[in-house]
Amino acid sequence: MTIYELGETAVVGAIIRNLDIEFEDCAVIDITDAEYLVATTDMFHRTTDFPEEMSAWQIGWMSAAGTLSDIAAMGAHPCGLLVSTGLPDLPQAFVESIIEGLSDCARKCGTAIIGGDTDSHQELTITGTALGRVRKDRILRRRGAQIGDLVCVTGYLGTAGAGMRALELGLAADDPVAVKTLFEPTPRIAEGIRLAESKAVTSMMDNSDGLSESLYQLAEVNGCGFTIHADSLPVLPVLDTGKDLELVLYAGGDFELLFTVAPERLVDARDACELTVIGAVQVGGITLDGTREIERKGYRSL
Amino acid sequence: MTIYELGETAVVGAIIRNLDIEFEDCAVIDITDAEYLVATTDMFHRTTDFPEEMSAWQIGWMSAAGTLSDIAAMGAHPCGLLVSTGLPDLPQAFVESIIEGLSDCARKCGTAIIGGDTDSHQELTITGTALGRVRKDRILRRRGAQIGDLVCVTGYLGTAGAGMRALELGLAADDPVAVKTLFEPTPRIAEGIRLAESKAVTSMMDNSDGLSESLYQLAEVNGCGFTIHADSLPVLPVLDTGKDLELVLYAGGDFELLFTVAPERLVDARDACELTVIGAVQVGGITLDGTREIERKGYRSL
Repeated sequence: MTIYELGETAVVGAIIRNLDIEFEDCAVIDITDAEYLVATTDMFHRTTDFPEEMSAWQIGWMSAAGTLSDIAAMGAHPCGLLVSTGLPDLPQAFVESIIEGLSDCARKCGTAIIGGDTDSHQELTITGTALGRVRKDRILRRRGAQIGDLVCVTGYLGTAGAGMRALELGLAADDPVAVKTLFEPTPRIAEGIRLAESKAVTSMMDNSDGLSESLYQLAEVNGCGFTIHADSLPVLPVLDTGKDLELVLYAGGDFELLFTVAPERLVDARDACELTVIGAVQVGGITLDGTREIERKGYRSL
Repeated sequence: MTIYELGETAVVGAIIRNLDIEFEDCAVIDITDAEYLVATTDMFHRTTDFPEEMSAWQIGWMSAAGTLSDIAAMGAHPCGLLVSTGLPDLPQAFVESIIEGLSDCARKCGTAIIGGDTDSHQELTITGTALGRVRKDRILRRRGAQIGDLVCVTGYLGTAGAGMRALELGLAADDPVAVKTLFEPTPRIAEGIRLAESKAVTSMMDNSDGLSESLYQLAEVNGCGFTIHADSLPVLPVLDTGKDLELVLYAGGDFELLFTVAPERLVDARDACELTVIGAVQVGGITLDGTREIERKGYRSL
């Protein structure tokens, strides 16, 4: 059996179970009595992650953003970004722009590139590793959702997917906001930190694999289900939750926070950041409006 | 100008200077009053780093070892390995063996795989990120060598290069030790920690880019030169410092520690680990036996 036949969920699932690693956005290391260090690594490359239309600066920015989003998902403060680059024979200015994009995104998140490696490679490949720090009594994990909790997201859903669709249809100029979200996502660092400080959140992750896949991962860890309200799904005016529902539920590439909140603490979560309540935690099943099952599909990389 | 025309030294040099990063084996983060966190990332891939003769397990082991060697070079205790893998459509058992090799090497170094990412990729690509902890008064950096200090190495020089030569000549069976060193290097974690504790070492790095390139990097950081004694270079019986001198000076792939020690503290360094004195720090120039210049060449990846 090859790994592509098995699919990423099975392959990664087997690796993680064998190694006895938690299913989390970041690894968690006990560094002091008061704090955890969190660490995450993400690989990006030309074919899958960098459409032709992306500039070098955006390639850098997106790679840093995708990595730092996992730090946001733990409620942590970023404290460093390491970058390994596999480089074809590109113009020097192009490589400098990639580094500038990486560095600008790190700075936007309150940190910096602190180290790295370069290698020659047939295909442009960037691996980001981000580090963060978080108080032990503030860290937000995937585990913790309780039946009856509200399901919330920051920002809008399906925006990056709409950008990808616009690119595929050659209509990028008509949809600049969606394409910009796809190419220049902003990690929700400030929102993650404030939600952690609110102590209102019971579980959290980012939705970069798409809403459906993220809900399934959260359900597995928590042994629960979700009901999602179609009418409440927050989308930009370019999208319609009716005719674009597939995109809103299944497209990846957004870097929003998906989290659960006890109903009586919703006011505290709202004080922490702008959010939309999109559903509730239930005993089992992942359904739309309590009736239709949401399929498990979305962005998988194998 | 393309980056391959410029070469890795120039490209990386420009990036590092622009970002205001130290030339070190690891990034250094201040985590507590008493300790630093050190972090390093390394990218490996099929064409450059994994000869056909390597097993899947060895591919994993070597990738972890190459990464963890940078932790050894700071005198730090490893506290985690993150692994991003770019995977072609390989048999499941092959991928499991890679992970096992990674995991076994991490365990040998007193740590474990704590997180990672998988991605589909045309070429097998592995990025390791290793984390370590070290007391602030023990950390070993590249800067610190003084004129008159002795230059020392652990283990043997040119062994991995001899392994590569044996592979190229189809003589791997005649040289099993060298090929094993190339495929299954052991990071000098224990030696790094003990040398750090000895407080006898004034500067340290690993020699994975080859002795010459490593000496040049150490010279640049310290604003000094080195004289190396040809007769003292430690080699395995399969090598001859006369006829194999090119290999001993220039071949990469060994993961030994290269460090400087004040002459009066040599006894303490010897107590810490087995080492060979191969030369001394001088004002300028990198020479063999004080006469012949050692060229700057060795393993560069662009």
